[in-house]
Amino acid sequence: MNTDKITRKPFPNSEKIFVDGTIHPIQVAMRRIELTDTVVVKDGEKIRKSNGSICVYDTSGPYTDPKLDINLEKGLIRLRESWISKNEDLEKLPSISSQYGLSRLLDSKLDNIRFGIEHKPYRAKQGKEITQMYYAKQGIITPEMEYVAIRENQNLQELGLESHITPEFVRDEIAAGRAIIPANINHPESEPMIIGRNFLVKINTNIGNSALSSGIDEEVEKAVWSCRWGGDTLMDLSTGDNIHETREWIIRNCPVPVGTVPIYQALEKVNGKIEDLNWELFKDTLIEQAEQGVDYFTIHAGIKHENIHHSLNRLTGIVSRGGSILTKWCKIHNKENFLYEKFDEICEILKAYDVAVSLGDGLRPGSIHDANDEAQFAELDTLGELTTKAWKHNVQVIIEGPGHVPMHKIKANMERQLKACHEAPFYTLGPLTTDIAPGYDHITSAIGAAQIGWYGTAMLCYVTPKEHLGLPNKEDVRNGVIAYKIAAHAADLAKGHPGAELRDYALSKARFDFRWKDQFNLSLDPERAMEYYKENSKEDGDFCTMCGPNFCAMKLTKECID
Amino acid sequence: MNTDKITRKPFPNSEKIFVDGTIHPIQVAMRRIELTDTVVVKDGEKIRKSNGSICVYDTSGPYTDPKLDINLEKGLIRLRESWISKNEDLEKLPSISSQYGLSRLLDSKLDNIRFGIEHKPYRAKQGKEITQMYYAKQGIITPEMEYVAIRENQNLQELGLESHITPEFVRDEIAAGRAIIPANINHPESEPMIIGRNFLVKINTNIGNSALSSGIDEEVEKAVWSCRWGGDTLMDLSTGDNIHETREWIIRNCPVPVGTVPIYQALEKVNGKIEDLNWELFKDTLIEQAEQGVDYFTIHAGIKHENIHHSLNRLTGIVSRGGSILTKWCKIHNKENFLYEKFDEICEILKAYDVAVSLGDGLRPGSIHDANDEAQFAELDTLGELTTKAWKHNVQVIIEGPGHVPMHKIKANMERQLKACHEAPFYTLGPLTTDIAPGYDHITSAIGAAQIGWYGTAMLCYVTPKEHLGLPNKEDVRNGVIAYKIAAHAADLAKGHPGAELRDYALSKARFDFRWKDQFNLSLDPERAMEYYKENSKEDGDFCTMCGPNFCAMKLTKECID
Repeated sequence: MNTDKITRKPFPNSEKIFVDGTIHPIQVAMRRIELTDTVVVKDGEKIRKSNGSICVYDTSGPYTDPKLDINLEKGLIRLRESWISKNEDLEKLPSISSQYGLSRLLDSKLDNIRFGIEHKPYRAKQGKEITQMYYAKQGIITPEMEYVAIRENQNLQELGLESHITPEFVRDEIAAGRAIIPANINHPESEPMIIGRNFLVKINTNIGNSALSSGIDEEVEKAVWSCRWGGDTLMDLSTGDNIHETREWIIRNCPVPVGTVPIYQALEKVNGKIEDLNWELFKDTLIEQAEQGVDYFTIHAGIKHENIHHSLNRLTGIVSRGGSILTKWCKIHNKENFLYEKFDEICEILKAYDVAVSLGDGLRPGSIHDANDEAQFAELDTLGELTTKAWKHNVQVIIEGPGHVPMHKIKANMERQLKACHEAPFYTLGPLTTDIAPGYDHITSAIGAAQIGWYGTAMLCYVTPKEHLGLPNKEDVRNGVIAYKIAAHAADLAKGHPGAELRDYALSKARFDFRWKDQFNLSLDPERAMEYYKENSKEDGDFCTMCGPNFCAMKLTKECID
Repeated sequence: MNTDKITRKPFPNSEKIFVDGTIHPIQVAMRRIELTDTVVVKDGEKIRKSNGSICVYDTSGPYTDPKLDINLEKGLIRLRESWISKNEDLEKLPSISSQYGLSRLLDSKLDNIRFGIEHKPYRAKQGKEITQMYYAKQGIITPEMEYVAIRENQNLQELGLESHITPEFVRDEIAAGRAIIPANINHPESEPMIIGRNFLVKINTNIGNSALSSGIDEEVEKAVWSCRWGGDTLMDLSTGDNIHETREWIIRNCPVPVGTVPIYQALEKVNGKIEDLNWELFKDTLIEQAEQGVDYFTIHAGIKHENIHHSLNRLTGIVSRGGSILTKWCKIHNKENFLYEKFDEICEILKAYDVAVSLGDGLRPGSIHDANDEAQFAELDTLGELTTKAWKHNVQVIIEGPGHVPMHKIKANMERQLKACHEAPFYTLGPLTTDIAPGYDHITSAIGAAQIGWYGTAMLCYVTPKEHLGLPNKEDVRNGVIAYKIAAHAADLAKGHPGAELRDYALSKARFDFRWKDQFNLSLDPERAMEYYKENSKEDGDFCTMCGPNFCAMKLTKECID
């Protein structure tokens, strides 16, 4: 494993800065973009006006900090290790607890692909509660809570502006279940972030190999790459070989929370035979992954035997992999979904590591025709019931949502979710607003994602141009991430999130000043903007090839002002 | 000029069909996509079920009809020539009327770039009215009206379904000013289409050279290319050399309505000296272009001297080229905008050729910060006043709109436009919902375009990835057009346009049936979808590389149904 393929180059004119906490000894990483001066000529004299700098939310972790050595074989700095090790409600186990994990550890054939350093897992002491939700309900502000409060405010502090997003506010939102901090105690490399509708809208990216493609190197490379462009969380959806080892490499090198769908690995363990899935196997998989440091699990506990018939006469049936697996399991055994039946026991495991649960929408619509149908909404009601259960265990909850939904049916999804699931954060895939553009589904879905984000969805699961067609490559990941950063930011603006408009303002001011480089440096993808600009133009100037010198409206405006 | 660079290849499994009119002897072109059968195996026997075919709206004109010879030097078939020549309210002029046009015709230095065939222009006879709006008000259904009624219905007729979009409905919408058919009597090559909020949402594309780039060949190539992907109208925004000749080539070879901004050419005629612009020069330009066949003119008559101050203290000033030119003219001369003052005379010219007017939004916001401000809305009120004036002349009107607008301020634009402009069709640029993504503005704006289309905008002006950075190349045009076809179609679905969902339904059914090729053939860009699919997969199969065989949700659904 080498770092050659990992992109570490800092963005232009950008510096990693760290803001100190006041409650806890924490340092919150941000990216500061230095701007050049505005130069105005008055009475033949050049007058310079500083534009200062602007801070932006940064998900790239230590990778873009040139002061740090990165060694993928060692993993990232364990930022939260000292916070966790001080917690007396936790204990460090002498060894990992899952049978499967142990068997992989002892298998010498895997030595050459195994991550080299063994970290003993943490777990809550018997009878102790350690989730962020538990602490929030006790009125405690954890380091993670203070971290996200500082992180969400970005420029406001530097500008001396007040924000309602205080550590206390964070705590209260988590206590109410309206927000979560996915932060498994065994993923100390992750920089805390918050998912909730009263915070910045977040985006999730998916990576993972399938039986047909891709190795460990490539998945780690994609993980770092997606963080670089702005992925707030990362789901590893691997379904091929060596899932356990791949995941270890990803988690040890990932600065953002990692999610998985444990049923995928469980199914690989029984060689794809759905009938052989069972609770004991699944339970061992949960423990295995929790001790590796997975921050949230998608669990399709909302599939209920009595509701299956709703989905079978749809135009596109079931399009969730997890949903279809559990549905088939129920049909084969003619029994209730074991994830639904064992949900309390699942929560008992999750709470010991503070793994959040993402309640999967196994019956999300896969086409415009199937949107907002009985199958989808019946499951949503079950997810609401499970939310209440999870909260009794102080397990943090998010709710997955569709899917394919035409624009006029999007709002109903948000309203119904808030009501059915007691305001637990909504986490939607798109939604795609039409079915007719395979190859461009990052766009069909960014349209829906921006809207549902505005209406209150807390995290948007990205869609790449390859959706419905194949696995994304690096360029697809970049295009998907940027499309979703756009959707999330458009939603932040529409919601009036404090400070969201500052970046637009700074970029537009740079545009009007013909400070081209500032304009690019402030953009979501400075490299792409510069590349396109350079195709036609050679250097800074007070017009561009779009309009040429005689037709530059902004130049003419200035002439009118002068 | 050769056709080598023109893409004529029909889309896969697609055939050009023609639907006969019942009132007029017209043939309406559509694209029919043949679908393959669904094959189900029951009791060991293969059962085939036909999926028939589906018709889609086709803007590619004769280019995708392999039965036709295309010769760019001769221009396209003059489809409407026989309708026009029969009209006794028209006369064929012995020669073109504009001084500038004549001078170009007589300049032998231009022989090598001039379009070779001279068509004498048509004009309304003295005292006669000939606009679509005039005829509509008289209760007359023109061939153009019947054509668009058939065209809008696509599949409904084949399926035997009723639609409220009848020729009578078209006529009434045009009479009320709620829709227009841009169809200059001197552009008989254009296939009639309608712009109005009770019809399919349309998209406009922009091409045109600037002083710094691009020749005639390339502009014609881009024009055909943009029609291929779905551009409903085309604006030629050329500002460089040989605008007159470039436009002639484009119009003679363009199967969709062509729009221009005549002030651009007027300014070139005075070598970029804004102070030298005047009414006589502008008037001659209008006549010149009307006789070439331009179907609609953007005219920035809404800039008023008294409102200029509103725009000068904005963050990004004026970003409309036309708007900034007229503003500067007013400032230099300290006089009212001559386009506003001469608006009745402008209408007198337009009505003689049935050129529609697109009232330019010279003060559209160029940044999120400037959205919905006083400058923008003061101009909108003026546009409403001018609409009433134009309608008195029976000149067809559309209203241009923003621009950069955050999502929560989009609806207010639509509502205010409908009220201020008496329900004249709205024609917006995007809007872009954030400023921070240069290089991806087809996406920032498709998000806004889909929404404003849903709220009632009749035509969306596309934005390419190069917006703010440079002139688009062919791939940028394709990406911009597809992004906007997505936005327009998402809006049609949300509005419940009759039959809009049929294509989504057919594509999703093909997807669920694993009829991969049908899925691609039904998509907006079959070539791109196929290209992405082939990167990973070799042939048709009942799963793809995204999930692999064990994890294909749709395959598992089928197993549950069987």
